[in-house]
Order: sequence, then structure tokens, then C-alpha cells
Amino acid sequence: MKLHPMWQNYPQLVPELNQTIELMEQSVKLKNKAVEKAVLDMIHSGGKLLRPAYQLLFSQFGEDQDRKKAICLAAAIEMLHTATLIHDDIIDEADIRRKLPTIRKQFDNSTAVYAGDYLLISCFKLLADYTQSMRSLQLNSRSMEKILDGELGQMNDRYQIDVTIDDYLENISGKTAELFALSCGIGALESGCSEAFSKKCSEIGLNIGLAFQIIDDILDYTKTPEGIGKPVLEDVRQGVYSLPLIYALKENKQALLPYLSKKEAMSHEDAQAVFDIVHQTSAIQKAQDLAAKYTNKALKGIAKLPDNQVQTKENLARLTKAILMREN
Amino acid sequence: MKLHPMWQNYPQLVPELNQTIELMEQSVKLKNKAVEKAVLDMIHSGGKLLRPAYQLLFSQFGEDQDRKKAICLAAAIEMLHTATLIHDDIIDEADIRRKLPTIRKQFDNSTAVYAGDYLLISCFKLLADYTQSMRSLQLNSRSMEKILDGELGQMNDRYQIDVTIDDYLENISGKTAELFALSCGIGALESGCSEAFSKKCSEIGLNIGLAFQIIDDILDYTKTPEGIGKPVLEDVRQGVYSLPLIYALKENKQALLPYLSKKEAMSHEDAQAVFDIVHQTSAIQKAQDLAAKYTNKALKGIAKLPDNQVQTKENLARLTKAILMREN
Repeated sequence: MKLHPMWQNYPQLVPELNQTIELMEQSVKLKNKAVEKAVLDMIHSGGKLLRPAYQLLFSQFGEDQDRKKAICLAAAIEMLHTATLIHDDIIDEADIRRKLPTIRKQFDNSTAVYAGDYLLISCFKLLADYTQSMRSLQLNSRSMEKILDGELGQMNDRYQIDVTIDDYLENISGKTAELFALSCGIGALESGCSEAFSKKCSEIGLNIGLAFQIIDDILDYTKTPEGIGKPVLEDVRQGVYSLPLIYALKENKQALLPYLSKKEAMSHEDAQAVFDIVHQTSAIQKAQDLAAKYTNKALKGIAKLPDNQVQTKENLARLTKAILMREN
Repeated sequence: MKLHPMWQNYPQLVPELNQTIELMEQSVKLKNKAVEKAVLDMIHSGGKLLRPAYQLLFSQFGEDQDRKKAICLAAAIEMLHTATLIHDDIIDEADIRRKLPTIRKQFDNSTAVYAGDYLLISCFKLLADYTQSMRSLQLNSRSMEKILDGELGQMNDRYQIDVTIDDYLENISGKTAELFALSCGIGALESGCSEAFSKKCSEIGLNIGLAFQIIDDILDYTKTPEGIGKPVLEDVRQGVYSLPLIYALKENKQALLPYLSKKEAMSHEDAQAVFDIVHQTSAIQKAQDLAAKYTNKALKGIAKLPDNQVQTKENLARLTKAILMREN
């Protein structure tokens, strides 16, 4: 059980994040020990636990300081997130995640379908058994429904040369930002904050999630030479056009079309060409500007939060800057 | 929206089964209208709605006659069932279900993964929003966890020549009987019956489910000539050895081994040979005897239920005989 080293800078959070991992471990009890191990390995493989961390931090604002409940909510959200990763790996035909072979690669797609289902269900079991909060069950299921509705909606959008910035934002709202919004909002609400206050926390989470995903998509285009092309190639081949490419298409569609029209048949060299064209435009800069816009919105929202003794507001600002101004 | 014709014999149940379907329809709201239609088609495609029917009947025993809650529980259980069918079709690479192309066939495996996830989540959303019953959320998530644990456990058991009757029973307990047990038990419990009474109802459901699945597996070996071999071929090829074959293996392993050892490479002729060998043994008779044993256990349990004005007990006995003494 190893926490990501970034948490050394937030010693106050370490015990609760460790307990979050423990609770997740306890929730995974399978007869099939090989699959159980694979799911546990995934839990231990150094995901950053950002969603639980935000949930735990926002839960410091209310009067209800039942930390067991807060940890349970944190574990439930990370389990939802892990379930979606396992199922996403089926859809993306991914072989590696966080330097480990994916469950579909270690076993097969069938095992990955049921293992993801198991984690989805375990999340609701955990909430029903430990938090006894109907509200959190409602919020979790609504968010998850939104995420899946978004994923299904997006299925038709692959290989769309004329995908707009708005389409992209709607897509990443569902895919990434929704769970950040849930984490922040439910953290506040379940600790006893008002609906209005919790809604503001949820908006902060949405902005964090949007900036986080945009930065992730930019990094695909700015990684060190060894990494160049591979994630871009995979995404572009599968018809998933992210923000840098969307901006580049606006600037120089004609140069990109010959490559993109090859669809699944794109070669590594084609991806390299797409990569180079994107870099000849101002796409990366524009994408960075948009990420900065959402980062600033989030930081402004955080600045307006009330002060408290455990310096939640300061920790939130520091954490948000650390992950949204990261370089890898 | 058409109910299976069998329900004409149970006019009392018809309005509530129709409302169950309506509630399921209302729960499926997707931006992707093609996928929404496919899921709705599946809901309408004439599944027998046995689990909701048992849930509704057992909910007539308690003092709490909130029929909206009962219908909501019925819809939730059928949605869980439908979700597992969509995911099972991915695993079994099935192209047809209830005479309609499966979702994985109409779209792709990716769409089927998310569509199944959506129904799993919608079930919990429905329970959280409408029943407000923490207990039913716990029971539903526990049952579903058991089912998935069973499916994952069974992944290793394919192509096992020495699979035992106990392995088989454990497997179908998870796969089929668990949801029947849940339907009957939760029906009683949520209508206000005692834990002890509800547990008995759950045992009746378990026996119904076991008999139901055994009969289904026997029918694969006894269908009319046109149907012969196909389902058997599929299952046996995928290494799923059901009760008739397990009994036949006990009697005449040597005759079966040359065919079974071909695994995925079995031809239609091989399957026909397996089919013929199974029929030369007493396997079908033994399987029928075992099904009869569980049917009788279920009917004995039903006979001990209390009488009431709406003749629940009589309807339960009649329904159970109708489905467990069926010929197709």
C-alpha cells in the first residue's frame, strides 16, 4: 500500500488517504483470487487518489466531522473511478495502465467486464452499508449515470473532423469533470454544509476537472521524445480528437485532413506528421490558455471559501496549483 | 409494450407488470437515441418478467401495501437482470437474444459495456430516488456482488472435464437462483414481513431459480430437431458444461473425451455426437429428477405460506408449476 509521493506535502491527509485505500481493499473480496489480486494491484498502482483527496478536504468545511463516513465516501468515489478505468480499457483496447498490464490484457475482456461491474456494485454496497446516506447514494448514482450517458453519447462523435470546442467541453465534463464535481460537492454536503455552499464546491470541482483533463490532453502533445506520438496515435487512430487537435483543425484543416482521413489505418509516421502540424499552429498555446482559464476559475472559487483552523482553503489552493501547473 | 401472453392467466398481476415496464422505460433516458432505442427494445422484447412477478406476489404478504414501492423494486430487479444479459452477451459473443440482435451486435462491445453499466447504475438510482429504502439498496447490491463474484469464480472452471454436480449447483446459484431468491425475499421484507418469514421466501426463490436453470439446461438437449445442437454446441465449445453433460461424463467419460478435448475447435458434427452420447446415458432423466427435487422443495415451501384474500399462495403455486413444468 503506497501513496503517491506527492502526498508527503500534505501530511494531514496521509492517514485518511491510507484508510481510504484500506477500505477499498476490504471491499474487494473475490473467490477468484487471481482477479482479486489484479483489482488490488490496480488500487495500489499509484493512482493519485485526487478525487478522494478533494472529497476529504471539502468534507472539512461542515460541522459533521464523522471521518469514517468521509473516508467511506472517498473510497466509494475512487471505486467508481477505478471501475470506469477497467471498462474504459476494454473500449480503448488498452494493454497498459499505470505501468501495469490492464485487466483485459492479464485475463480477457470478459473478466474485465465483470471486474468493472463488481467495483461499480461494491461502491453502492459500501455507501449503503457504511454511510447510510440516501443522499450520497442518489448523488453517486446520478453522477455515474451522467458519465455513462456522456460516454454513450460520444460514441457517435468519433472521427468527426468538425467537432467543436463546445462538443469537447461537454465530453470532458462528463468523462472527467463530473467525478471531480461530485467529490467536492458531496464532501461539503455530507459534512453538513448547506445546499448552496455545496453547489459552489461542486462548481470548483467542475473547473478543476475541466482544467485537469485539458492539461492531460495537452501533455499527450508535449511529452519527451520517447513518449511522442504514442498516446496521440492511439487516440487519433480511434477517432478521439482532443483539444490541441481541434484548435489545429480550425487553423490548418487542409494539412491535417490527408492523415486523419486514414482513420484506423494511420501509421506511426502519420501520427508524427499530425503531431508536427499541431505544433506548427498556435493550438498548444490556445489549449494552455483555456486550461489556465478553468484553473483560475477554480482558484478564485477556492479563494472565496471560508477560513478554518485546519487550513483547508490553503491546502486546496496548494493542491490545485500543484496538479494544474504540473509538467508530467 | 407487450406482456408475455402467459400473464393472461394472472389478470391480477397485469396492471402492476405493465407499470413495472413503464417505470423501466422512464428510467432509460439517453442522449444517444439509437442506444436508448436498443435498450428499450430489449425491455420490450418479451422477457417473461418472472423476477418482477415473484417480487410483486411475495410483496402481497406484508402489511405495507405501498404498491408504488413494490413496483419500483420490481423494476429495479428487472433492470439488474437486463444489465447482466447485456454484459453476458459480450462474454458469450452472442448475436441474438429473444429473436432480436444483441446490443453488441447492433453496435459494438464498447456500447454494450456502457449500456449495461448504465442499467446497473439506473437500478440503484431508482432504488435511491423512489423506494428510499436503505435495506433494499443493501440487499440488491449484496446479491449483485454475489452474482458477479460467482461469474468471476467460474471463469477458471471452463473446459473442466471433472466439474462436479456441486460446482454446477454453486455456479447456477450465483448465476440464476440468487436473483430469484432476492426477488422473493425482498418482496416479503419490504412489504413489512419479518426477517424470518422473508428468509423462507428467499429460500423458496432459490429453489425456483435452481429448478428453472436446470430445466433451461435440459431443454438445450431436448429441443425439436431444428434447434438441436446449436445452443449445446455454443456452450460446450465455450467450455461451459451443464448438468446433462456432467451426468453423462460420470457415466461415459471415455466416449465424450475425444470430442470435448477439441474445445473451441468442435464442429457441428462433434456437437451432434456429444448430443447423441448424452441421450444414450441416463443423464437427461437424472437432470430431470434433480429439477423435480428443487421444484418440489419450492412447492412445499409455497404450500406452507399463509392464506390471504388475494390468493397469493395459490397464484404462486400455479405460476411455479407453469414455469417449472414447461416444455419450451
